[in-house]
Amino acid sequence: MFSYYPHYDTVATGLTLAIEIIGTFAFALTGIVVAARKRLDIVGVAMVCGLSAFGGGTLRDILLDRRPFFWVEHHQWLWIILGLCVIAMIFLKTKHIELTEKMIQVPDALGLALFTISGTEIALISGSPLLIAVLMGVMTAIFGGVLRDIACNEIPQAFTDHRPYAVIAFIGSWLYIAMDYWTSNEWLPTLIAFSTIVVLRLLAIKLNVVIPSWMRK
Amino acid sequence: MFSYYPHYDTVATGLTLAIEIIGTFAFALTGIVVAARKRLDIVGVAMVCGLSAFGGGTLRDILLDRRPFFWVEHHQWLWIILGLCVIAMIFLKTKHIELTEKMIQVPDALGLALFTISGTEIALISGSPLLIAVLMGVMTAIFGGVLRDIACNEIPQAFTDHRPYAVIAFIGSWLYIAMDYWTSNEWLPTLIAFSTIVVLRLLAIKLNVVIPSWMRK
Amino acid sequence: MFSYYPHYDTVATGLTLAIEIIGTFAFALTGIVVAARKRLDIVGVAMVCGLSAFGGGTLRDILLDRRPFFWVEHHQWLWIILGLCVIAMIFLKTKHIELTEKMIQVPDALGLALFTISGTEIALISGSPLLIAVLMGVMTAIFGGVLRDIACNEIPQAFTDHRPYAVIAFIGSWLYIAMDYWTSNEWLPTLIAFSTIVVLRLLAIKLNVVIPSWMRK
Repeated sequence: MFSYYPHYDTVATGLTLAIEIIGTFAFALTGIVVAARKRLDIVGVAMVCGLSAFGGGTLRDILLDRRPFFWVEHHQWLWIILGLCVIAMIFLKTKHIELTEKMIQVPDALGLALFTISGTEIALISGSPLLIAVLMGVMTAIFGGVLRDIACNEIPQAFTDHRPYAVIAFIGSWLYIAMDYWTSNEWLPTLIAFSTIVVLRLLAIKLNVVIPSWMRK
Repeated sequence: MFSYYPHYDTVATGLTLAIEIIGTFAFALTGIVVAARKRLDIVGVAMVCGLSAFGGGTLRDILLDRRPFFWVEHHQWLWIILGLCVIAMIFLKTKHIELTEKMIQVPDALGLALFTISGTEIALISGSPLLIAVLMGVMTAIFGGVLRDIACNEIPQAFTDHRPYAVIAFIGSWLYIAMDYWTSNEWLPTLIAFSTIVVLRLLAIKLNVVIPSWMRK
Repeated sequence: MFSYYPHYDTVATGLTLAIEIIGTFAFALTGIVVAARKRLDIVGVAMVCGLSAFGGGTLRDILLDRRPFFWVEHHQWLWIILGLCVIAMIFLKTKHIELTEKMIQVPDALGLALFTISGTEIALISGSPLLIAVLMGVMTAIFGGVLRDIACNEIPQAFTDHRPYAVIAFIGSWLYIAMDYWTSNEWLPTLIAFSTIVVLRLLAIKLNVVIPSWMRK
């Protein structure tokens, strides 16, 4: 699980790991929320939950031709996801769904930030051009949700809700690249880009920001 | 076509081949049934039919980074699928659709069993951890249908019909792995796991078994 | 961008490049038209536009295990696509949508022809059997649109509109292979197959041709 950041010191590694766990859980929970709305069965819940949590990173790795996937290397996660699904199916009532959505806003923002930056970094290490690295960062962050919505027969929320989610990932990814270019400090780019994404995302939710839409009918 | 089971004797190989043909036909026919309901054109019917028959194995091979795909190595199958589609479009009337669905229950169960076990075995040979091998077995069996339903703009039946299909594949795959561990017999694990999956599946249809759902509204 | 046709002379290369640009733009515009109908936000428009333009070639390359993808090697295209999306979102009014659809019929036919032939050629060079090469040619041409429609929660137009699009690609691809076998001329097969696809496609639109459907209810 530490493989993304082999050069970090122990505190940073511990923090990264904690955020990774929190973010993956948040992404998995968005899958459970959508699956609950559609009243999928346990197979559907587990698959949609897994898609939400690992779909973005898996697509990135297929495009970059990287193996093994995160969920193959750390397959213990699959048991955790499966357990989460069983617990959710037993205890989650309809009235809990909106509460869950609200509760995961902060962890989801942490996941958005971490997966954007780790996706960008992995693509850069693979020798991708800058724009491709940014695109991989954004896709790592949003394509779990996109695949989740496609599997649930919905237009992906990230494509249609006019909320700044991918856009913030896009900005944060460029910020990370710019910082990485300007400083030789190892963890400053991650820190700045990470905080920027989290703050922008939470602000966007708080202020109900809408991204520009089609101009005229 | 024998490449999955290079160590089997001739009778077993012949049997495996026969079941493989029956199973692939059954999976292809589920594609034709769904495509007929949606009144797709010949291109749609052929693509959905091909997705149903080969989608699960192809996704598995992409995830495991294996080449060539089954349908590339045995491309004669594509002509058979195409012929099947043309025949279906000429002769299949609406009243035949339900009959077809009923008729393919047994071949479909054979396909479920064979593709689960071959998927598990292929993943094990590729060095996958046990849980990943089970997941690959299940995905080989169900993702043809999942991709078929997504292409037809439906929530995948395997995710939402509360019937034990993937769940039986999951059980059968673990059984295969356990048997493989306990015995040195070459074909006993396959035989036991295969029969278990087929029997459980047909029993589930017969007894109208429903898998646990969301507990409360 | 010339990598598909390293052996062509300068005029042919220039022509190919021009058609490639026109075709990619046409495919991208079909994405914008569908995204506009669904009133997607800028993220959705950009992703669907990119899927339409590069989805077919990317899927082909994943199946053939080729890297880098076109849009990774020529990532400048992504800026052009992004600019196209921004311009479309500012200037495209509802009344323009049908006009755009009409205007892109010819460029789209050029794209259909070029991507079918280049897809077939790439698959042949990769050592694919003939039928697989034809399938790859057809998929290169149609799967951008298929992925576009799936992402927009529609049954893919190519599967359901009963118009000859993939069928013409199929015919053109076989014609290319047959010509390639019969003549040692370097660019005659491309020229003949290309013209045939374009002419057949435009004729099909003009004459409102419908491909055979299900025979009876």
